[in-house]
Amino acid sequence: MREHFELRHTDVAGRIGELTVPRAGVTVETPALMPVINPNIETVAPARLEEEFDAQVLITNSYIIRSTEGLRERALDEGLHEMLDFSGAIVTDSGSFQLAEYGEIDVTTREIVEFQRDIGSDIGTPVDIPTPPDVSREQAERELRETEQALADAEAVDVGEMLVNAPVQGSTHPDLREEAARNAYATDLDVFPVGAVVPLMNSYRYAEMIDVVAAAKRGLGVDAPVHLFGAGHPMMFALAAAMGCDLFDSAAYALYARDDRYLTVRGTEHLADLDYLPCECPVCATHAPADLRARDDAERERLLAEHNLHVSFGELRRVKQAIRGGNLLELVEARARGHPAMLDGYRALLTHADQLEREDHVSKDAFFYLSTESARRPEVRRHHARLDRLPVTGEVLLTEGKGGSEAYDHVWRVLPPFGPFPRELSDVYPLTAETPERVDSAAQEAAARGVTRLVEGNPDAAFTLAHDDWDAAALVLVPDSVTLRNRVVDTE
Amino acid sequence: MREHFELRHTDVAGRIGELTVPRAGVTVETPALMPVINPNIETVAPARLEEEFDAQVLITNSYIIRSTEGLRERALDEGLHEMLDFSGAIVTDSGSFQLAEYGEIDVTTREIVEFQRDIGSDIGTPVDIPTPPDVSREQAERELRETEQALADAEAVDVGEMLVNAPVQGSTHPDLREEAARNAYATDLDVFPVGAVVPLMNSYRYAEMIDVVAAAKRGLGVDAPVHLFGAGHPMMFALAAAMGCDLFDSAAYALYARDDRYLTVRGTEHLADLDYLPCECPVCATHAPADLRARDDAERERLLAEHNLHVSFGELRRVKQAIRGGNLLELVEARARGHPAMLDGYRALLTHADQLEREDHVSKDAFFYLSTESARRPEVRRHHARLDRLPVTGEVLLTEGKGGSEAYDHVWRVLPPFGPFPRELSDVYPLTAETPERVDSAAQEAAARGVTRLVEGNPDAAFTLAHDDWDAAALVLVPDSVTLRNRVVDTE
Ligand SMILES: [Mg+2]
Ligand SMILES: [Mg+2]
Ligand SMILES: [Zn+2]
Ligand SMILES: [Zn+2]
Repeated sequence: MREHFELRHTDVAGRIGELTVPRAGVTVETPALMPVINPNIETVAPARLEEEFDAQVLITNSYIIRSTEGLRERALDEGLHEMLDFSGAIVTDSGSFQLAEYGEIDVTTREIVEFQRDIGSDIGTPVDIPTPPDVSREQAERELRETEQALADAEAVDVGEMLVNAPVQGSTHPDLREEAARNAYATDLDVFPVGAVVPLMNSYRYAEMIDVVAAAKRGLGVDAPVHLFGAGHPMMFALAAAMGCDLFDSAAYALYARDDRYLTVRGTEHLADLDYLPCECPVCATHAPADLRARDDAERERLLAEHNLHVSFGELRRVKQAIRGGNLLELVEARARGHPAMLDGYRALLTHADQLEREDHVSKDAFFYLSTESARRPEVRRHHARLDRLPVTGEVLLTEGKGGSEAYDHVWRVLPPFGPFPRELSDVYPLTAETPERVDSAAQEAAARGVTRLVEGNPDAAFTLAHDDWDAAALVLVPDSVTLRNRVVDTE
Repeated sequence: MREHFELRHTDVAGRIGELTVPRAGVTVETPALMPVINPNIETVAPARLEEEFDAQVLITNSYIIRSTEGLRERALDEGLHEMLDFSGAIVTDSGSFQLAEYGEIDVTTREIVEFQRDIGSDIGTPVDIPTPPDVSREQAERELRETEQALADAEAVDVGEMLVNAPVQGSTHPDLREEAARNAYATDLDVFPVGAVVPLMNSYRYAEMIDVVAAAKRGLGVDAPVHLFGAGHPMMFALAAAMGCDLFDSAAYALYARDDRYLTVRGTEHLADLDYLPCECPVCATHAPADLRARDDAERERLLAEHNLHVSFGELRRVKQAIRGGNLLELVEARARGHPAMLDGYRALLTHADQLEREDHVSKDAFFYLSTESARRPEVRRHHARLDRLPVTGEVLLTEGKGGSEAYDHVWRVLPPFGPFPRELSDVYPLTAETPERVDSAAQEAAARGVTRLVEGNPDAAFTLAHDDWDAAALVLVPDSVTLRNRVVDTE
């Protein structure tokens, strides 16, 4: 058990947790967003992040601090918290990015971890190798050995109360990511960044991002806090949280603002293209696009950064509320409609249904059927698996109708996408589902697969299916032994 | 041509327009949201609505004013604008609601329209009969005759510069709604409320609401400003705007606040159920749910009303920005995932594809394929219709691949959900579409229907379809005369 991280609530693979950061003396509620502070450029002051945006944790770069004359001395002298004027948890990166960018850096893991300890970082980082996507297996494996050595070197440093990141690399090779995660989890280190996914996010390869995270999660214990490194766009917070990511970091809020780019939960807009500000935040409620365009560069950048922060923290609250309400997948459904690549990401998530199992989660909210993707949700698969274990005998009517019938030994309800179930389960999640009146073929096909599971598990029973005019694509999936009755077309 | 209303931009059946309100001397940009002011209960002062929320128009009830001793005299004396302290346009309702609720009211259309004129209303309303959903055709027709008489009575009043509403009734009978709209449009009256849809919205019957609006729109000229009467929940603004609604009114912001209910673009939350405030507005950015719960009733009601207003006006900006960007249906896609009944509403909208035709709208944004519903968007149908008029001869390769082939006379591209097109059209909307990598059967089936249209229009050409491993459900739709090649499975 990881002693610094405790899970409080879960939904899908998403969770609300508490990360105890002993050196800062704070507990950070996850999912958490860590604004990235460039020690050389202040867009929004850390004290304002803490007071106005309720940021509990931020991340800055110890390599830049160490390489910059004045900063290095101040950090060693005052400590990071005083230098940045921030009382929450401070995470420090190590220079891995600079290593990847420039080919070498002038510091070892031991040196940078000791420096991070000395400047008062709360969570330090070794110099891992951020292997980019799409490299050969050989390169990914070779670089993984270097990352593992960096983790071992970090473990050997006497860090006191400082927590230490154990980055998980492996490029786009799922088995390497899983192996790297398993090895990282076996160390004494504390937090697990999934690294080098920024190139995937920048090119909208959200499906592959999900596959990478899913692979890493398979190698980590459920008690491992996972940081999706470089993930700062609010459009994918719900998706990534549903796959089990606990920490996000945003440089985007400031970098995008510098380019007049405006974040939304559905994508990115350019200020030049906006005729209206499509947001409720304090900036957008009191300015028109023309007001912002008329400001000088610094002022406009600050206002856009504030908007970007508001929408990022607001989306994080939405994600957390969805986890508490047990409707995180419903939020993912909505976010999947922001861009076709987000739909790909959601479709990829659903292929990992085995990893999305919820422990007996008592949900206040009903399952909402919101798209043909909903037919592939884990709840549907779980219901089908349960049908294998539900015995039934004699003459059995499976019907979409409400009434019973004395002509049968048993009358079960049928609800697309779940399929058949005994009426006693009608009040049990997920069979309390809200479904559309205009049923689609995907829901009927999933229900037909449920019928098949039940029929196969009960070869001695005789089944009749009374359906509401299902599509041929669904009916063809029902075993031939089942008597079909169309409740809409047939007269009884 | 209705002289008080001009269209500026359109997308789907949605539009940005300008409603000139001569008596107030203002031009209201539509879609517009009119907060409802109860003359007896002030939740948020009209002056604040104007200053802080940028409300350009509000609506109040002239019947209540006329029936309330002190108010009646003040309104006649000072005029509505001074009494309410609001300089934008003021719409007045007539007491129809009270008539429906209590069976009779003590005022005629002539009297109430004259009263509205006398108190300085900018848009008045006759006493129409708000026939509820699901009544018999006979009742709906009978009450429609009374509503038509009320319209005629209002026309006969000398109202000066005041505009006058011409409500469209007809219950849930589409042909009656269409006829009522045609008759209303034939009067000299100015604004067209679609009436008595509140019961549909309250019971989440969004599909039927869309059918009712679609019917009314068929009877109205495109230049008629349409008010979806009683529609104040931001979750359905995008859907209703896409069907061509220009005006919304919100009593919800105040009524919901009184019950501790919190509006979002995905539905309604109860304050008691919230662990986080899932919103970016100035209220939610500075309060936690516990802060709100700790306030006294009046203060909590005001703060919740402010949140409800912020999210309503924010969503309206989002809708307007989407119309400008040509991506209103993409916003509807996202909103359809708020509740299964919203999905029903979107599916109903798509059945009115003939009414959603856009005039040669040059869109900056690409068509986004975001769900299996996207396969039924008007752009797909329009492309299929265009295929009837595209002649092609000889040996024709239709391929999902990028390359050409010398073995064919013509090589056309195939893109699900659109189907085939000559490469010269690749840069033309909607064929610039962004589509997911993980293609679904609905997109392939739509593309197969496109292939069929092309084949049927060119009986002398010989077609080969090189597809990326389409589902059987799609391939079965392709005419037998077409040679099939699977680019994924076949080796060439
Ligand atoms: Mg749920
Ligand atoms: Mg578009
Ligand atoms: Zn904003
Ligand atoms: Zn709010």
